[in-house]
Amino acid sequence: MEFLRVTYELAVPLPEAESRAEGIAREQTVEVPRVVVRDAFIAEHVLGRVEQVAAAGEEGRSRATIAYPADATGLDPAQTLGVLFGNSSLAADVRCVDIEVPESLARALGGPRHGLEALRAATGAADRALTCTAVKPLGHRPEALADLLRAFGRAGIDVVKDDQGLANQAFCPFEARVRACLGAVEEVADATGHRVLYAPNLIGTPGRVFDELRLAEDLGARAVMASPMLIGLPTFSEICARSSVPVLAHPSHGGAVAYAPELLFGKLLRLYGADAVIFVGYGGRFETPRPACASIADGLRAPWAGLRPSLPVPGGGIELENAAEIVSFYGRDTMLLVGGSLQLDDAGPEARSRAFVQAVHDASAALPA
Amino acid sequence: MEFLRVTYELAVPLPEAESRAEGIAREQTVEVPRVVVRDAFIAEHVLGRVEQVAAAGEEGRSRATIAYPADATGLDPAQTLGVLFGNSSLAADVRCVDIEVPESLARALGGPRHGLEALRAATGAADRALTCTAVKPLGHRPEALADLLRAFGRAGIDVVKDDQGLANQAFCPFEARVRACLGAVEEVADATGHRVLYAPNLIGTPGRVFDELRLAEDLGARAVMASPMLIGLPTFSEICARSSVPVLAHPSHGGAVAYAPELLFGKLLRLYGADAVIFVGYGGRFETPRPACASIADGLRAPWAGLRPSLPVPGGGIELENAAEIVSFYGRDTMLLVGGSLQLDDAGPEARSRAFVQAVHDASAALPA
Repeated sequence: MEFLRVTYELAVPLPEAESRAEGIAREQTVEVPRVVVRDAFIAEHVLGRVEQVAAAGEEGRSRATIAYPADATGLDPAQTLGVLFGNSSLAADVRCVDIEVPESLARALGGPRHGLEALRAATGAADRALTCTAVKPLGHRPEALADLLRAFGRAGIDVVKDDQGLANQAFCPFEARVRACLGAVEEVADATGHRVLYAPNLIGTPGRVFDELRLAEDLGARAVMASPMLIGLPTFSEICARSSVPVLAHPSHGGAVAYAPELLFGKLLRLYGADAVIFVGYGGRFETPRPACASIADGLRAPWAGLRPSLPVPGGGIELENAAEIVSFYGRDTMLLVGGSLQLDDAGPEARSRAFVQAVHDASAALPA
Repeated sequence: MEFLRVTYELAVPLPEAESRAEGIAREQTVEVPRVVVRDAFIAEHVLGRVEQVAAAGEEGRSRATIAYPADATGLDPAQTLGVLFGNSSLAADVRCVDIEVPESLARALGGPRHGLEALRAATGAADRALTCTAVKPLGHRPEALADLLRAFGRAGIDVVKDDQGLANQAFCPFEARVRACLGAVEEVADATGHRVLYAPNLIGTPGRVFDELRLAEDLGARAVMASPMLIGLPTFSEICARSSVPVLAHPSHGGAVAYAPELLFGKLLRLYGADAVIFVGYGGRFETPRPACASIADGLRAPWAGLRPSLPVPGGGIELENAAEIVSFYGRDTMLLVGGSLQLDDAGPEARSRAFVQAVHDASAALPA
């Protein structure tokens, strides 16, 4: 029998941890008092079992690892989240901090279909950290976004994504935007030989996002982006399964549930199929500690459950002057996302974009081989 | 111009609140430094504006209300969440606590298509609090679930929902389960005249949940259930738009941490279309304070933005002996959900189910007219 192992951090001291963990093991599976589990099949194939409890670092806190029979998930992407952290997410004393997945579940969810190496191949960035920015702010017309893309492309940026707020607003419809930006990609490629990997943002109800995916593919997009926690992880999972091109994950709305960032960004999004995962790293507007950033990046790249590696994309307000240090922190298998600060010059984004590209290339070259 | 007004609670003292709120207003819309917003259209039609900051009850905390131009949402269910609490959900010092929606957005999202009155009509419960339970635990075969449903039906329970963990597991496939349970509904109706409203659980990727919805409707289900925060609110929104029958919302994966429960369960789920909203109330395994419970129920039932009222469904471990008190707390326009504790007797669930029904009916009758 296979098990999904989940580790929770509990705001209870060790002596109470065992019984609290038993409660969680029930809440996440049978959701009835223990005496109601009269059926041997249910006790064996459904009910979670507490495997380990230990004191956590902090006073009054503990950690518990629970093994859930994989059968309980039905190998379904939504029900897997339910087993992982369904009802217990509603309790104030529990955080979900780690998972180990059995092979059956890893195969069913599939992980990255393209992954890190495909993104290297698609950008031609063979052996260095990659660069990424966004066409933004929200509110620009398609042609204004295409102009930004031209400047970023001439500067040599590898990946340009839509701002995650670009939906299908009247002032910037999806199709017009994707056409304009892909046109700009080809213009720059003709002029300079550098073909930007442009990732349109898929957002909306399922009916809409799958139409957008097909349209983006038909128009020649070589990558797409979506925000899994806005559209829902199961919808994201279906996008990854259907998409013929790499899928970037944006972290928007990710803080609405008590997942450890190391789990959500470092493991779950990879498991659900993200080829590249944007997260808010240190050194920007958010305060993710360096060890958490390192864990996220390691989680995405390390051998795990037979899944392809995913490309870590630290963002969230990285300043140009920190780019070199950030490359030395994460290493080559990384893509730096610098957004609005490339547009600080009234003269346009090209000069700062060139400086960004140069900094990342130089810092990559300076890394030990 | 129309605005979506959002209130945040900030872990910063009042003197810092204005500038923190300005940061959020940018983060949720343009996501660039203010100087990069050079375009008058963007400043007017996209950028959020801080309308009010005030000290919150607690020392060192404050509240800020930001007005976002409705244009920024594109009236899209996913992008609306992005504007509401996209990137800012990733910051540790912000909770999203309230919204006011403009008419355009309320119309676009649609709210309950059936709502409280339709659920009264479908159950025949004209003027009293309603009763609800679940066929569970996960792990039972379809026939065992149908047996439970028969007992609940004979006892007179109004609504029986699937456990939210019932997906399409090999031991209990969706179609076999729905057929068995709907068969049991008709048997009980033939024998007693009481027709249980059975709500099958829709769960999975979009491809799967829409197939399940169609199948449930074809088989004659008169209600369905889904967990919006497992499948994603935009998928839930599409289910509500497509469904010909009332849709119950289950709170699994809702993590009432960074959203105030009053907002998530009391307003957002109604806005997105839930006809009935299950939430974890006081008096059970979760510790939702009574004032929050009252706000959730009021939020679902009060006149708001031209939306139909939604039926509040407190659950989360209500004990039978508290049922009467809970009816007196929430009043008639409520459905009590009692789950596993109806199954505590080895002799079967019927006796405790009858006691549950009796307690709710009696407590309803005792309410002031």
